[in-house]
Amino acid sequence: MFYFVIDILGIVAFAISGVMVAMDKKLDLFGVFIIAFVTAIGGGTLRDLLIGNTPVLWMQESIYVYVIAGTVVFSIVFRDQLKYVRKSLFLFDTIGIGLYTMVGISHGLNAGLLPVMCIALGTITACFGGVIRDILCNEIPVIFRKEIYATACIMGGVSYFLLRKLPYDDAYAFVATILIVIGIRLLAVRFKISLPNIYRSVK
Amino acid sequence: MFYFVIDILGIVAFAISGVMVAMDKKLDLFGVFIIAFVTAIGGGTLRDLLIGNTPVLWMQESIYVYVIAGTVVFSIVFRDQLKYVRKSLFLFDTIGIGLYTMVGISHGLNAGLLPVMCIALGTITACFGGVIRDILCNEIPVIFRKEIYATACIMGGVSYFLLRKLPYDDAYAFVATILIVIGIRLLAVRFKISLPNIYRSVK
Amino acid sequence: MFYFVIDILGIVAFAISGVMVAMDKKLDLFGVFIIAFVTAIGGGTLRDLLIGNTPVLWMQESIYVYVIAGTVVFSIVFRDQLKYVRKSLFLFDTIGIGLYTMVGISHGLNAGLLPVMCIALGTITACFGGVIRDILCNEIPVIFRKEIYATACIMGGVSYFLLRKLPYDDAYAFVATILIVIGIRLLAVRFKISLPNIYRSVK
Repeated sequence: MFYFVIDILGIVAFAISGVMVAMDKKLDLFGVFIIAFVTAIGGGTLRDLLIGNTPVLWMQESIYVYVIAGTVVFSIVFRDQLKYVRKSLFLFDTIGIGLYTMVGISHGLNAGLLPVMCIALGTITACFGGVIRDILCNEIPVIFRKEIYATACIMGGVSYFLLRKLPYDDAYAFVATILIVIGIRLLAVRFKISLPNIYRSVK
Repeated sequence: MFYFVIDILGIVAFAISGVMVAMDKKLDLFGVFIIAFVTAIGGGTLRDLLIGNTPVLWMQESIYVYVIAGTVVFSIVFRDQLKYVRKSLFLFDTIGIGLYTMVGISHGLNAGLLPVMCIALGTITACFGGVIRDILCNEIPVIFRKEIYATACIMGGVSYFLLRKLPYDDAYAFVATILIVIGIRLLAVRFKISLPNIYRSVK
Repeated sequence: MFYFVIDILGIVAFAISGVMVAMDKKLDLFGVFIIAFVTAIGGGTLRDLLIGNTPVLWMQESIYVYVIAGTVVFSIVFRDQLKYVRKSLFLFDTIGIGLYTMVGISHGLNAGLLPVMCIALGTITACFGGVIRDILCNEIPVIFRKEIYATACIMGGVSYFLLRKLPYDDAYAFVATILIVIGIRLLAVRFKISLPNIYRSVK
């Protein structure tokens, strides 16, 4: 139940982030819905395609479509108030990537993949919805340019494979991983830590 | 036979719309061909990937590749005359999305998906070729910004699931759905109806 | 062994080309890695998805991830010296597309596809890593705009299906195809041959 609530909160947060980017581009109603939709389920869809898990997850469970549709309607109606909840949204979004990272890793383990591939799948699940959102809106994906985001997912993933070697139940490693991803992202934003940008020093 | 002719006309119309966008971007011969190709088969390809229907359809039937290649050659040779057939093209394109919507819904039903997912698949089949075309040409997809297009597909899809509850043969619902999609699109363009664009009213 | 060395050289060349494009866009460390990664494995991934060969190849063999990661670190450390090896890189890249074209064709044959689809798969394997790289960096893909690149792959693919009708071992056609792709690309660049750009002559 707790797991389910977090999952839905993550979807809502991702969908709202899609609505906000789409509104900045002045898209029409359908465009806003599609951007919200791909932001929320794009990462999981790419994960399912890569491991051959088809029909992809959101086609098998109608709850996702309805939650996203509801979120879009709500966000558009209250669009002038969205800025007041920006902080809560950031928190949902951060909880979302923590959870999605772990969900992706689990799928990778079930598919019998190596740890490094599981970590890649976790990162894809958490981050590529945002990447597809930015491509559809004709922007270079924001996670390639700034902010610790994917890096938090990768560090969480590495932690998981270290933690599960400890003589405790796997559930502890599971929860710890989610908290590590969330913690790294919160600290990075709080202290304005980001990855170095790379460019040539001589022309 | 009739079905087949419509299918080919739809592909031709989509391919020509790809050629016209690619020419505006002054792409080279290969670029024009690829854009025409993804416009014509992109929606169906994404549908096949999402439901795990691989190899995707156009890889199993060579007719698509040859029709598209022929259309590209024809369009380039007669590129200065294309504007005179713009109205016919619009009609083919509209017939194409009507047909593709129904084709996508059928695939969804065969894959045992819920109605809402079948409607999504129908809309993806009809619309995402154009979305991929616009992304490859570095534009925000036109269907996110203006025109009733995806909306016609969605309304047609909803109609199909209402109509098939009636005590008639499924073939009637099938044909009616195609006509509904075409009708909505024609009326929307005729009366310049479009979805509202969404943006924040306060800064 | 020889085959393996060429494969790795191709990956390294593609990854470095990704790093260079990503640096021009001043992406951060994660962005540079992802761009290098998709450039190197994007074409093969799309091929695997289209024919339903999942989990996709790079998820089954960890060597690819490590080679790409090593290449990215190396390229960033020596980024100011990269221009001195530009010529060698061009050669690796050209060898890479020759090899990838043939790899794609082989996958198509194994999947029982028609020759024209095998050629398409070979071209996709060789070229679409670069296409995805350019889309992620918000550019119209370079291979749609200039240079003989995909054309060399297509001509090589056609040659393969002609050559294997000759009464020799298939291995000769295999090697000849790779050399033909490489030869066409080298000649095209040497003599500045490119495909005509297509645009309307009247407004």
